[in-house]
Amino acid sequence: MVMQETRVRDLEKAFEEDKKRIHEDYFTFLRFKSVSTEPEFKQGILDCSDWVQTFLSSIDFEVEVWQEEGHPIIFASYNGAGADKPTLLIYNHYDVQPVDPIDEWDSPPFEPTLRDGEVFARGAQDNKGQCLYTLAALRALYEEEGKYPINIKVCIEGEEEAGSASLLKLCSVKKEKLQADFLAIVDLGLKKPDAPSVSLGVRGLVALDLEVWGSHTDLHSGAHGGIVYNPIHALNELLAKFRDENGKVQVPGFYDDVIEFSDKERELICFDFDQNVYENHFGQATGGEKALSALERNWLRPTLEINGVCGGYTGDGFKTVIPSKAFAKISCRLVPGQNPEKIGKQVAQFLLENAPEGVTVKPHIHEGGGPALHASPQSAGVRAAAQAYEEVFGKPCAFTLEGGSIPVTPALAESSGAEVIFMGLGLDTDQIHAPNEHFGLDRLKKGFLSIIRFLEILGK
Amino acid sequence: MVMQETRVRDLEKAFEEDKKRIHEDYFTFLRFKSVSTEPEFKQGILDCSDWVQTFLSSIDFEVEVWQEEGHPIIFASYNGAGADKPTLLIYNHYDVQPVDPIDEWDSPPFEPTLRDGEVFARGAQDNKGQCLYTLAALRALYEEEGKYPINIKVCIEGEEEAGSASLLKLCSVKKEKLQADFLAIVDLGLKKPDAPSVSLGVRGLVALDLEVWGSHTDLHSGAHGGIVYNPIHALNELLAKFRDENGKVQVPGFYDDVIEFSDKERELICFDFDQNVYENHFGQATGGEKALSALERNWLRPTLEINGVCGGYTGDGFKTVIPSKAFAKISCRLVPGQNPEKIGKQVAQFLLENAPEGVTVKPHIHEGGGPALHASPQSAGVRAAAQAYEEVFGKPCAFTLEGGSIPVTPALAESSGAEVIFMGLGLDTDQIHAPNEHFGLDRLKKGFLSIIRFLEILGK
Repeated sequence: MVMQETRVRDLEKAFEEDKKRIHEDYFTFLRFKSVSTEPEFKQGILDCSDWVQTFLSSIDFEVEVWQEEGHPIIFASYNGAGADKPTLLIYNHYDVQPVDPIDEWDSPPFEPTLRDGEVFARGAQDNKGQCLYTLAALRALYEEEGKYPINIKVCIEGEEEAGSASLLKLCSVKKEKLQADFLAIVDLGLKKPDAPSVSLGVRGLVALDLEVWGSHTDLHSGAHGGIVYNPIHALNELLAKFRDENGKVQVPGFYDDVIEFSDKERELICFDFDQNVYENHFGQATGGEKALSALERNWLRPTLEINGVCGGYTGDGFKTVIPSKAFAKISCRLVPGQNPEKIGKQVAQFLLENAPEGVTVKPHIHEGGGPALHASPQSAGVRAAAQAYEEVFGKPCAFTLEGGSIPVTPALAESSGAEVIFMGLGLDTDQIHAPNEHFGLDRLKKGFLSIIRFLEILGK
Repeated sequence: MVMQETRVRDLEKAFEEDKKRIHEDYFTFLRFKSVSTEPEFKQGILDCSDWVQTFLSSIDFEVEVWQEEGHPIIFASYNGAGADKPTLLIYNHYDVQPVDPIDEWDSPPFEPTLRDGEVFARGAQDNKGQCLYTLAALRALYEEEGKYPINIKVCIEGEEEAGSASLLKLCSVKKEKLQADFLAIVDLGLKKPDAPSVSLGVRGLVALDLEVWGSHTDLHSGAHGGIVYNPIHALNELLAKFRDENGKVQVPGFYDDVIEFSDKERELICFDFDQNVYENHFGQATGGEKALSALERNWLRPTLEINGVCGGYTGDGFKTVIPSKAFAKISCRLVPGQNPEKIGKQVAQFLLENAPEGVTVKPHIHEGGGPALHASPQSAGVRAAAQAYEEVFGKPCAFTLEGGSIPVTPALAESSGAEVIFMGLGLDTDQIHAPNEHFGLDRLKKGFLSIIRFLEILGK
């Protein structure tokens, strides 16, 4: 342990000496407008992908670009550690979420701004912050030794926020290339800023669009109000049926395949949740199934959320219109046992069966969902990650779970044949997917240190 | 009657001879972007107002501009007919509704386009079409005789689509100026294109905004789904309570003050409604209270419609967000007996009392509503309008009602002390307040003829 402490101390010194370059690279990475879901950001995606390729080429990685119909996937490999060393596949993504609502940002989303040690920008954490400290860690190792302690493959995709269609398609095709002993998903987080934890799993995801059509065209609410059925009313009445008064999802079969956690499994997980801290920060914590605690609801149970709803006139003032259609965007988070395709169909079926008379209900299941994925706390890779975090934080590492999803991970785990390890230093308060996303420079440093130690431990 | 027929024939000839100028004026009027609810259209409002003032000045009217905080009100008067002739106050508006959703227009909303005898443009009917044939009729009379058969006051406002705040304020202040024997509201319509009808009343209006706030900021639906209460769900659940399964509004007291029509009153009104024609045109006719017929629902009963709803991500693809807020725009159409202020408060109270736990519900009642207003079928003015229509259409004139509202009319009727007459040649199929609003050139001509005959009959 003494030697390890010295090593961490040396690495801290190395980070401080290289800090200016690392921060500059971080800011450069954040300035690319690499929003994957919106076609007008295509150039930002391409420029960002080029930049990452150049970075990896410069530190002795052999870089390939995998191109399907969507955005480029960067695949890079280093095989110089020898056949007796394990191979680690690292997964990140360089694409980011849209920036709406833009007027709620305190500084421009693509102009990273440092305030009180936190960098504010779209992607500051998810996933450019975590990707950058990984890249910087690799570079530091290479520049120190001219080589790496293990064989490394890096897969950085550009469609994570859009459903990972390209990578999902290529997982089976590129099976050989993806083979690895360990798969590190560096896109997760901590529960508290000062205590290390390793997540043992992510939830799955399936998303749907819903359109409700009333009349053929928008109508005047005076001339037609009382005659036609307003699709906004129909939409509200339909969506209100999703959950009962106890927050339980009413879609038939929704909970049928949920694999319940055993008491022994629960004991491994730290369910600590400070309701006051959460409510002070976010305003309330009253969602989901009323019979369960907050983290049980978020980690162990599937949820259904309406992510967007729109219809009629939504500008300033008012316009007395009955619109011809209204729509909603719906997504479900899934737990082990649940099949995304089956749940998607159940939700669509529920919407069709409960369609109010007089309107046309059109559900559409999005591609790109995925099941939940859990890691084993006994895995050598998970233990290496936990040890690295313990060394860097100087505290024992807890196990947690994650409410979020990384839909491509199950396919990636299967194709690579690797033990999955969920890593990352995100925090619930980082505002990912929201205005004013941010990430702390202290965590950028801890991430850098942790990745290096993780690779070194795996190489022992 | 023979003399009247000759007169209509002569006027038709006069119209045909002047048609080019009338159509050019109509198109010019439509090109002004006089959207009253959106501040960026201020210049369009001012230019349009100037154009109308110039028109009226050129035909011997004394023009005043009444300016409150909002858009200019044009008041013009002609007193040359002598004290033994009645005074008619004509009400129109030069402002128009917003053009959203802009991509559903087949031609630009402010570039009037003629297709199959119909002019497509925002305001083509409501109210620029009806205002223009009124102005053209006045000009024709003046150019023919150098004078008018009765004393005329014209009030053309610029905030009808925004609630008429300025005119509502000025109605009492300008009481003296507004004094008249008859008040013609030329903003209404026919039930069939080829059969004349005069409306005996409009419904009242009150509008509200509703905000539902959940967390302090938008949140990731994975990291927070199941913990926080999503305000879109809360909004849906709240709005779904507005109506029961029979379409009856559930706001306590909503129907309390409704004055029911007597059988005798009902007999005067033509309730003909062709469900098939309506459904073929608009797609469905299944809204409102299930126990009543379509026109009973639209004419005799108050209604509550959600005119807009919005929350979360509404762009392409999807974004797994739980928004911090969701909002809705609500309006109620009122019938005689109902007080807009009281109904607004009842609806706001209903929203507060039914607010789901864990979210903050903020209703806001808009200014600018107004009660319903009905005209008497025995009024000399209504009889003159009916006769003018009978002469022009060559068919008997029916009495109808209107589902829409002109919120300023009750105040205008009270201040002027005049008998109200609802006139106009709009059709339910004109798409007012919607994309592809249009008005037929045949009705522009009939409107021109009717207004002249109406003035001449009143002058007898």
